Amino acid sequence: MRYGALEAGGTKMIVAIGDENGKILERASFPTLTPAETMPKMIDFFKDKEIVSLGIACFGPIDLNKESKTYGYITSTPKLDWKNYDIVGEFKRALNVPVGFDTDVNGSLLGEITWGCAQNKTDAIYLTIGTGIGGGVMTNGKLLHGMLHPEMGHIKLALEEGDSYKGKCPYHGTCFEGLAAGPAIEERWGKKAVELADNKEVWELESAYIAQALSSYILTLSPQIIILGGGVMHQMQLFPLIRKKVIEQLNGYINTDEIKNIDEYIVPASLNDDQGIMGAVKLAIDAA
Amino acid sequence: MRYGALEAGGTKMIVAIGDENGKILERASFPTLTPAETMPKMIDFFKDKEIVSLGIACFGPIDLNKESKTYGYITSTPKLDWKNYDIVGEFKRALNVPVGFDTDVNGSLLGEITWGCAQNKTDAIYLTIGTGIGGGVMTNGKLLHGMLHPEMGHIKLALEEGDSYKGKCPYHGTCFEGLAAGPAIEERWGKKAVELADNKEVWELESAYIAQALSSYILTLSPQIIILGGGVMHQMQLFPLIRKKVIEQLNGYINTDEIKNIDEYIVPASLNDDQGIMGAVKLAIDAA
Repeated sequence: MRYGALEAGGTKMIVAIGDENGKILERASFPTLTPAETMPKMIDFFKDKEIVSLGIACFGPIDLNKESKTYGYITSTPKLDWKNYDIVGEFKRALNVPVGFDTDVNGSLLGEITWGCAQNKTDAIYLTIGTGIGGGVMTNGKLLHGMLHPEMGHIKLALEEGDSYKGKCPYHGTCFEGLAAGPAIEERWGKKAVELADNKEVWELESAYIAQALSSYILTLSPQIIILGGGVMHQMQLFPLIRKKVIEQLNGYINTDEIKNIDEYIVPASLNDDQGIMGAVKLAIDAA
Repeated sequence: MRYGALEAGGTKMIVAIGDENGKILERASFPTLTPAETMPKMIDFFKDKEIVSLGIACFGPIDLNKESKTYGYITSTPKLDWKNYDIVGEFKRALNVPVGFDTDVNGSLLGEITWGCAQNKTDAIYLTIGTGIGGGVMTNGKLLHGMLHPEMGHIKLALEEGDSYKGKCPYHGTCFEGLAAGPAIEERWGKKAVELADNKEVWELESAYIAQALSSYILTLSPQIIILGGGVMHQMQLFPLIRKKVIEQLNGYINTDEIKNIDEYIVPASLNDDQGIMGAVKLAIDAA
């Protein structure tokens, strides 16, 4: 069987054809311009590929409530051309196949759960730290939507001692994203994260904020594994620092085998940055 | 049918007989002394009541992992007499009926979901703010356990401007419980919460910390309703303050019907403080 997959991001759209094992048979990428410019290119890509269904892992916020009149829409995104855009409906009409739909981060989590490092887990978090910070969550073996979907990059954090940075988030200032996403690193230190790889001070502070957020998620969601992806997390020196600080912050309060084996609990994404598009394949499989 | 129910708390044990509608037919209460003193009294209460099963909503931490050798145990509690105590096993052996088991806060949530204000919800939080702070969570229609169970009263919060209190939590200092549970209020202001009802400054600060925690839970768990119970939440003047501050803190980032109707979103417990024992009845029904 051939499944269509779209990892819809604010910067680029990755389209692919995958099989039932998550293998990517073919792929292409288009810059995210307006729907009028970008949709026809994606539809052309899928048109003659004999796909049985399409899965879309999409930037947000999006409407995932199947009872809602605007189910399948991108809603209040700052990318104004895509605001209130019926992306699921447009693809359904153009391709005439069932369409699965979820957040980009739930897509990445689904990829890791199905084919990656979170197989056999029922409760897991996939967190991306890059231009923004977002999280996908599985609880009791199902992707979490709830009222809307998690927007866990926006939790407020306590400033580290001596830090007086005002934060970069236009909504919340010093939320996690405002303190620790790529643009915050760049504004704080005057260079991009990749150019700061050797500056220990940068990663001490960055890992402290990531650890504070992860500790909060652990206490709230009680996941069995936390997977960290996104551009900032390509700085692999972060992982030992984050793990050490999570243990310090929990301070012996949570005593589980998972926390004792923290190297297997807080882990990098395992699918060579294909977790998102592979998750979109799984969304298609589940929709077929 | 008659079901046995136990709401096991660190201070007292409430035992009851309930029916399939959650109606409490009979109840008693015993102080939580040692197992040797308190268990026989509870077993005596249940012994001749012809119950088909028993539900226990229990103080923790507890082991809820059915694969674990210590499933059904109270584990690392500071109440040392009950540490590593096989409470489920003891009742099973004494009464020879199936036993349902969950946290006290999941019990209260289950009561509200089954017979109270959270009926028809699939994603909900019950938070108790009293001597401690703890939360029960339902996601996708199931109680959340994950790796262990949420310990969401222990998330770290940012101090409010001008606040220099060191916090009361022996593990985390200024976590939510350390800043806002009953003992923190008493230490900070020199009086118990009930004696401070008319002091506006107390409730401005208290509501700010509660709102900060709720905003974090909303962004992480995306619940459809948040129910607040426990002794501190008997101060009903807190509710309008909390709602106002949650809206200020989310700052327009989450636009859902629930947030727009916040009076029905952040609500007091609805079962006259019987949510816990009624939830224990439901645990018994589900175990039968």
